[in-house]
Formats: sequence, C-alpha cells, structure tokens
Amino acid sequence: MAAMKLHGNPMSPNSMRVAAVLYEKELDFEFVTIDMKNGEHKKEHFLSLNPFGQVPAFEDGDLKLFESRAITKYIAHEYADKGTQLIVTNDSKKMAIITVWLEVEAQQYDQVAPKLIWELHVKPLFGIPTDPKVVEENESKLSSVLGIYEKRLSESKYLGGECFTLADLHHLPTLHFLMLTQVKKLFEPLPRVSAWVADITARPAWSKFLSNSSTNPISSIK
Amino acid sequence: MAAMKLHGNPMSPNSMRVAAVLYEKELDFEFVTIDMKNGEHKKEHFLSLNPFGQVPAFEDGDLKLFESRAITKYIAHEYADKGTQLIVTNDSKKMAIITVWLEVEAQQYDQVAPKLIWELHVKPLFGIPTDPKVVEENESKLSSVLGIYEKRLSESKYLGGECFTLADLHHLPTLHFLMLTQVKKLFEPLPRVSAWVADITARPAWSKFLSNSSTNPISSIK
Ligand SMILES: N[C@@H](CCC(=O)N[C@@H](CS)C(=O)NCC(=O)O)C(=O)O
Ligand SMILES: N[C@@H](CCC(=O)N[C@@H](CS)C(=O)NCC(=O)O)C(=O)O
Repeated sequence: MAAMKLHGNPMSPNSMRVAAVLYEKELDFEFVTIDMKNGEHKKEHFLSLNPFGQVPAFEDGDLKLFESRAITKYIAHEYADKGTQLIVTNDSKKMAIITVWLEVEAQQYDQVAPKLIWELHVKPLFGIPTDPKVVEENESKLSSVLGIYEKRLSESKYLGGECFTLADLHHLPTLHFLMLTQVKKLFEPLPRVSAWVADITARPAWSKFLSNSSTNPISSIK
Repeated sequence: MAAMKLHGNPMSPNSMRVAAVLYEKELDFEFVTIDMKNGEHKKEHFLSLNPFGQVPAFEDGDLKLFESRAITKYIAHEYADKGTQLIVTNDSKKMAIITVWLEVEAQQYDQVAPKLIWELHVKPLFGIPTDPKVVEENESKLSSVLGIYEKRLSESKYLGGECFTLADLHHLPTLHFLMLTQVKKLFEPLPRVSAWVADITARPAWSKFLSNSSTNPISSIK
C-alpha cells in the first residue's frame, strides 16, 4: 500500500497538477478516483478531506491536505531530494522570484485559463453552447498574460529562472486542455512562449503521466 | 534611506497586505505612493517593477518583487527572526497546514471578497450604482466560505493552527473594507469567525498601520 494517496478525478486539472509533481518526484502514490458525476466530492467522507468539496485532496501518512498548490508545495519541499528539484532551498532570493511566478500562475493566468477550458472544451463535450462573449473577454486577457510571459522568457529560460520549477509545472494541466481548443492560435505568434510550452509539455514525467491510463484525462472522457 | 521600498497605493488592499507584514515584522520601509488616478501604474517606470501594471511592487536592495502574496512570503521567510513569527520554519507538516489556509485565502475567500468591496464600498464612493445580482451571488459564496471557517476555527484558534500566521494576516485588508459594508451582517451569526476577526483586527501592528496617516486608507480617501 502506498503511503501517499491522491484523491482526485482524471478530468480535473487541479488533480493533474498534483499528479504531475508526484511523477516528477518519482514518488509512489495511490490514485483514488472520486466519482464526481455522482457527487462523491460533496459527501461526508470526502468533505472530511476537503471541507470545500473539491478535488484534489491528499494524504501522506496521517497528514491530510487540500488545495492543489498547497499540496504541490508540500511535496516539493518535503521530498526536495527526490526526483526533479522543483524549488530552490538554499537561496532565498532565487526562491522569492520563483514564488512571484507561482503567484502569477495562480493570480493572473489561472483566473482566465479555466474559463476558456470550460467554454471551449468542457461545454462542447457535454453539448452545451459556448458563450462567445466570455470567450472573447478571456482570450483577450490571456493574450495580455502571454505577452508578459513572452517578455519574461526572453530574460530567463523558464518563468522562475534558468531551471524548470513548480512555477512552470503548475501550468501543465491547463495548457494541456487549452491546446485542444482554438486558444492554441494565441500561442503561435509568440516564439518564446511556444518553445516553453513545447519544452515543458515534452517532459518525460508529464508524458509518462499522460500515458498512464488510470490517470489519463483523454482516455477517461471517452 | 530605507533599504526596502513598498510601491503601492493607500487604498489598495493588496498594498495593505504587504504593509501589514512589514509592521508585524517591525521592519523599516519607505512607502512610495503610486498615483493610480493618473495611470502611473501603467507607465514604463512602474511596469519595470511589475509587468502586470498593478500595485504593489517591492524592492529589498536589488531584489525586485511583485504579487502581494509572493512579497509577504519572502519577507516572512527572509526575516523569520524579526518581529512576529508568521510562518513555521522547523516543522514541514505544520507549515503544510498553514500553506493550505494560505491557498484557501487566495483561491476561495479572495475570489469573492474583492467583488463585494468593489460593489458595496468602492462603487458608492464614486457614485456608481451597485449591481444587486453580483452582490447576492457573492454574498452567498462568502457565506459558504465563512461557514467553513467557523468549523475550522472550532478545531484551532487560528486558520493555520494555534498561532497567528500569514494565513490569517492575508485576510486583514479585505476584512477591513468588508466590515464597512452590509456584509458585516454575514459575520454576526458566526461566533468563532467573529472572535477571530475581532482578534486579528485588534493586533497592535495592524492598528499602528491603520493610524499611520501616510498609509492610512481611511484618511486618504477623504
Ligand atoms: N483551488 C482548488 C480548486 C479545486 C477545484 O476547483 N476542483 C474542481 C475540479 S478541477 C472541483 O472539484 N469542482 C467541483 C466543485 O467545485 O464543486 C485547487 O487548486 O485544488
Ligand atoms: N494579485 C495581485 C493583484 C494586484 C491588484 O489587483 N492591484 C490592484 C490594486 S489593489 C491594481 O493595481 N489594480 C489596477 C489594475 O489592475 O490595472 C497582488 O496580489 O498583488
């Protein structure tokens, strides 16, 4: 039995964010699928893991955590010496810059990306009509964010500095879904952003995660 | 000359979040007022500090940071031994729980609180009509979040555990403005949340900050 348990749903970008870190860290874990269609995430058992009734939730022995970005930060710190180093532990100024871009992902990019995924990927899957006004507004916001990323990536290879870190990784699940939609076009005119997307989505840990059927979003929605 | 500079605006909750930490840490800093009415935050000088053109931005010697929560985390770690201890540095499991509640503030509470402040505090100040639908929707969301806080605060004195931490502090600026509006009513039926609000808003560092005229939001909007 694995000591770590990730309670999530294969279609959930927030669950995928934690899985991506566990793969980079080469850590064994059990993926416990939460049956969201039947509202399992709003039932007492799951609410004891996350009172907000959202996936993911996580257990490491008797430590229980929720909020995807809190879980990834815990794993990156606690297992700093396993697999890929995703943070900087010996230079507070370098870590501060990584933290800035971790906040940018959460406060800027992720305020927009899930709305576009909802409109352009999830709604069509369920035959719900897309709202063109919401798409237009959020495409425009995403373009501004990506323009700033283009500039940032002219100064350093990755968002947080010269190495791949948690700040890049946090984008992977939402980038994955965005690239299945028309939003892909917004990336094309931006050479540095495009190279960054190609680089981080080609990471062996991410490919391995995507090809593992039990946590594979593409196979699970068929 | 102070080595640290906080570039912000006295009316901005995100600027106040950083100032609150600097006061708890008893650190000297220079508050540089950004003239947002004249669009100073969108001009080249400020964009070199924060490419998103938002306050706050922060300098500590030659380190330049933005995103309020990245700045506060840097200060709490870098100056761990000054003033109030706002994080836990020697227990990764305790720190993981604090991180969960830091994420809850950002991902749950703060997705709602600024919208209510905008509708019920800022719009009236500028004579713009409030949108009752937005208010109703966000009051309902805030009630759910506060219900979860009520339960959490029956398990521990503060959100992150038995001590006041950054997870509590991050709420102070938005709580301050919410309490000037009808939203105050949503807190009243919740004894533990009310005691928590009373406790954290009465902290000497916060009172000192509020009574310092150069960074005082109340005096500055008159
Ligand atoms: N900020 C949370 C968001 C979690 C979240 O929104 N999860 C979605 C699935 S990706 C969910 O559980 N939605 C169901 C609901 O909100 O009721 C995190 O990062 O973990
Ligand atoms: N996530 C950012 C948000 C900063 C923010 O929204 N600042 C507001 C003032 S409180 C601002 O500069 N607004 C002007 C704008 O967005 O153009 C942070 O925490 O620092």
